[in-house]
Amino acid sequence: MSESHSRTGGSLLVVGSVGLDTVETRAGKRTDVLGGAASYFSVAASFLSAARMIGVVGTDFPDAHAAFLQSRGIDLGGLERVAGRTFRWSGVYAPDFSTRTTLDTQLNVFQDFRPKLPPAWAASDYVFLANIDPVLQLGVLEQAGRPKFVACDTMNFWISGKRPELLRLLERVDLLMLNDEEARQLSGEANLPAAARAIRAMGPAAVIIKRGDAGALLFHGAGVFAAPAFPIEEVVDPTGAGDSFAGGFMGWLAHEDDASPATIRTAMILGSVLASFSVEDFSLDRFRRLDLTQIRQRFTAFADLVHFEKIRI
Amino acid sequence: MSESHSRTGGSLLVVGSVGLDTVETRAGKRTDVLGGAASYFSVAASFLSAARMIGVVGTDFPDAHAAFLQSRGIDLGGLERVAGRTFRWSGVYAPDFSTRTTLDTQLNVFQDFRPKLPPAWAASDYVFLANIDPVLQLGVLEQAGRPKFVACDTMNFWISGKRPELLRLLERVDLLMLNDEEARQLSGEANLPAAARAIRAMGPAAVIIKRGDAGALLFHGAGVFAAPAFPIEEVVDPTGAGDSFAGGFMGWLAHEDDASPATIRTAMILGSVLASFSVEDFSLDRFRRLDLTQIRQRFTAFADLVHFEKIRI
Repeated sequence: MSESHSRTGGSLLVVGSVGLDTVETRAGKRTDVLGGAASYFSVAASFLSAARMIGVVGTDFPDAHAAFLQSRGIDLGGLERVAGRTFRWSGVYAPDFSTRTTLDTQLNVFQDFRPKLPPAWAASDYVFLANIDPVLQLGVLEQAGRPKFVACDTMNFWISGKRPELLRLLERVDLLMLNDEEARQLSGEANLPAAARAIRAMGPAAVIIKRGDAGALLFHGAGVFAAPAFPIEEVVDPTGAGDSFAGGFMGWLAHEDDASPATIRTAMILGSVLASFSVEDFSLDRFRRLDLTQIRQRFTAFADLVHFEKIRI
Repeated sequence: MSESHSRTGGSLLVVGSVGLDTVETRAGKRTDVLGGAASYFSVAASFLSAARMIGVVGTDFPDAHAAFLQSRGIDLGGLERVAGRTFRWSGVYAPDFSTRTTLDTQLNVFQDFRPKLPPAWAASDYVFLANIDPVLQLGVLEQAGRPKFVACDTMNFWISGKRPELLRLLERVDLLMLNDEEARQLSGEANLPAAARAIRAMGPAAVIIKRGDAGALLFHGAGVFAAPAFPIEEVVDPTGAGDSFAGGFMGWLAHEDDASPATIRTAMILGSVLASFSVEDFSLDRFRRLDLTQIRQRFTAFADLVHFEKIRI
């Protein structure tokens, strides 16, 4: 392993998609580049904690991608390689990044994905269930023993299409991360604090509502925390920003082996740091030239971004 | 004057609308209640600094409203009362507050408003030009001597309809406050940091981009500052939130008689504090039962909202 994460701390497990993305933005186009929630998550986390990855790829998955993930200390012991083609997604972003249009989704080998935990991984401490069918997310939890902290993501497709299964999952997770529109859809509340209150009543003690370039809000028993987004003037590719946020967030909890309120706040900033780097290049390319010094510098920049003097009136 | 603001500090001048609003939200409806940018601004500021108000009302303007403004220490020596009806605005907000629809605007005596500064006010230190015709905003500056700090607001109507006049104004102000859509419209840039850069090149050394419940961003020579919005679960009436923000902001600069980068950051938080109270009731009613203790408590809550531990990775 590199110097880039601690060997101590808790163990970190992620289950999610690994795929090949074709992306077009105002900054250019990339074809069949490394993508998928588990990829972004685990590489972002790798600067803080080595992740165990559960996923599936086809026989066409380039060895170079697997080698890159391993070079980041990621344990691919749960990444199945099966006959067929790797999951593919293709999309184009509006020039102002306000919308993105999916041009093509090929589930391929992901269609029949049934996550299987290597027996030794059942004792994982920190578990992130990236955005996949809640039935599969539940299946992971059934194999996962008693993690110290479970977080999950979801999306509009599951909120409307598999609501009962999603609600069963939410009873068993500590934290749900989702974006503002998903929070409104899941809760039926337009007001975000009200939406968070309703979602917390469904099970998760904590909810993180992601708002893109407006940052993220954490609602939990210790109150509310607002993490800004770092103002980035030259966004290249927003794909995977949310999963990079999750990776930085969970990576810090595992690094600290702690999920106390203070650690969770710092984790949100590290999530925002990793997300801010992620969008500066296509695919995971910014992470290929990222180091801890740059992460520390941006963490300091985040502290400065929100710093103000405490005054007496 | 009450105990609610310092007698020292710099002098504060505001020019803008004073009107009677009819507002309907999910929380109810109010008819012909006190409104207008200069009203919200000066009452919000009054907890920090007494403002001098330049505006116009008709003979129908209730004495009770003038008495309320004066009870807040606001100097109405520049508030003309002329024959005719007071400016009126009527609007309805969507149940989720995502949009508002203007039902009626009656300029009335505001139609022929030509701001006139009492001679003694030409020496005002801190000047806020609320959202009115940029020709009138320029007219105030021509009467205003050499203020220490001039801030202005504007809107889409002037950005498209009186762009040359607005650009002449911007060469003469220190700070422009506007919302994100207005910033995009004025600059032609979708990305907010890029928009701020373009606007600063038009003249103002500082730009504050207001994003409603996503907070506000300050761009100036000392970098970027992100002020969160306070998460409010029970919004009653968002009317005047931006002007209340401006009042808290400019009120603090005048209170401190300083516009250094550190003071400007704190002013943004006090602006956010006053804005957060403003939306908790119709019209300016929340300010009628607000005191410095509540302001201090919410300021502390803002500090907690963004606090995180500085860590070593």
